[in-house]
Amino acid sequence: MKYLHTMVRVTDIDASLDFYCNKLGLNELNRYDSEQGRFTLVFLAAPGDDEAQVELTHNWDPEEYDEGRNFGHLAYQVDDIYALCQKLMDAGVTIHRPPRDGHMAFVRSPDNISIELLQKGASLSPQEPWVSMESEGHW
Amino acid sequence: MKYLHTMVRVTDIDASLDFYCNKLGLNELNRYDSEQGRFTLVFLAAPGDDEAQVELTHNWDPEEYDEGRNFGHLAYQVDDIYALCQKLMDAGVTIHRPPRDGHMAFVRSPDNISIELLQKGASLSPQEPWVSMESEGHW
Repeated sequence: MKYLHTMVRVTDIDASLDFYCNKLGLNELNRYDSEQGRFTLVFLAAPGDDEAQVELTHNWDPEEYDEGRNFGHLAYQVDDIYALCQKLMDAGVTIHRPPRDGHMAFVRSPDNISIELLQKGASLSPQEPWVSMESEGHW
Repeated sequence: MKYLHTMVRVTDIDASLDFYCNKLGLNELNRYDSEQGRFTLVFLAAPGDDEAQVELTHNWDPEEYDEGRNFGHLAYQVDDIYALCQKLMDAGVTIHRPPRDGHMAFVRSPDNISIELLQKGASLSPQEPWVSMESEGHW
């Protein structure tokens, strides 16, 4: 038995790829368009970690996505949580839970999927602007 | 960057462990009870595949979990999809999408998290009782 992926639905595939790939840094592994089913699937993974994937499903016909409380988040370990949060912030992504402790941060995808970022190894030394940054909303 | 886990919230930790471990076959890797935070975390993984985990969060105080359409499913590759679906069915789990094609099935956790099961390698030959089994509900 082997974990393959977690699937999340997305309303705008370009906005989602911009977020997951350009901003967060995942790679697009493959993509499947179904004219008949009117959906697109895109499989993403962290660089060098192709086996554990996230599948984006884009249904071409509009659907309402309520924010299910039952689903929590996707979690990624990162090499430098400050560098990634800075990159995300510069790209206009809200850091809902800033890495005040040098260890953990939360952001959200364009469809409000929570994404947890965890510093690899020991926490980084507390550092501005993160130490003074307030949390925003929920995640 | 490395995928760590997907977190899902659960209302009943015993029912959830019965489903995810006893029925589905995942292993419990570790568990953390927070008296102060009034929550329990349990980390699960497929046997021999400890790195890609599912985190169950059980908040001790009741919460309503609506079924968010934005979250899709967790997916696992399995060695024998018929054997696992039979085991699940014998344990009282509804096979919402039976493996009629010898390739894919869907079940749901006690909190309605969809779980996709995919046959490893080539599809199995179509076989009863699966071929004649109707889908039930949605997943």
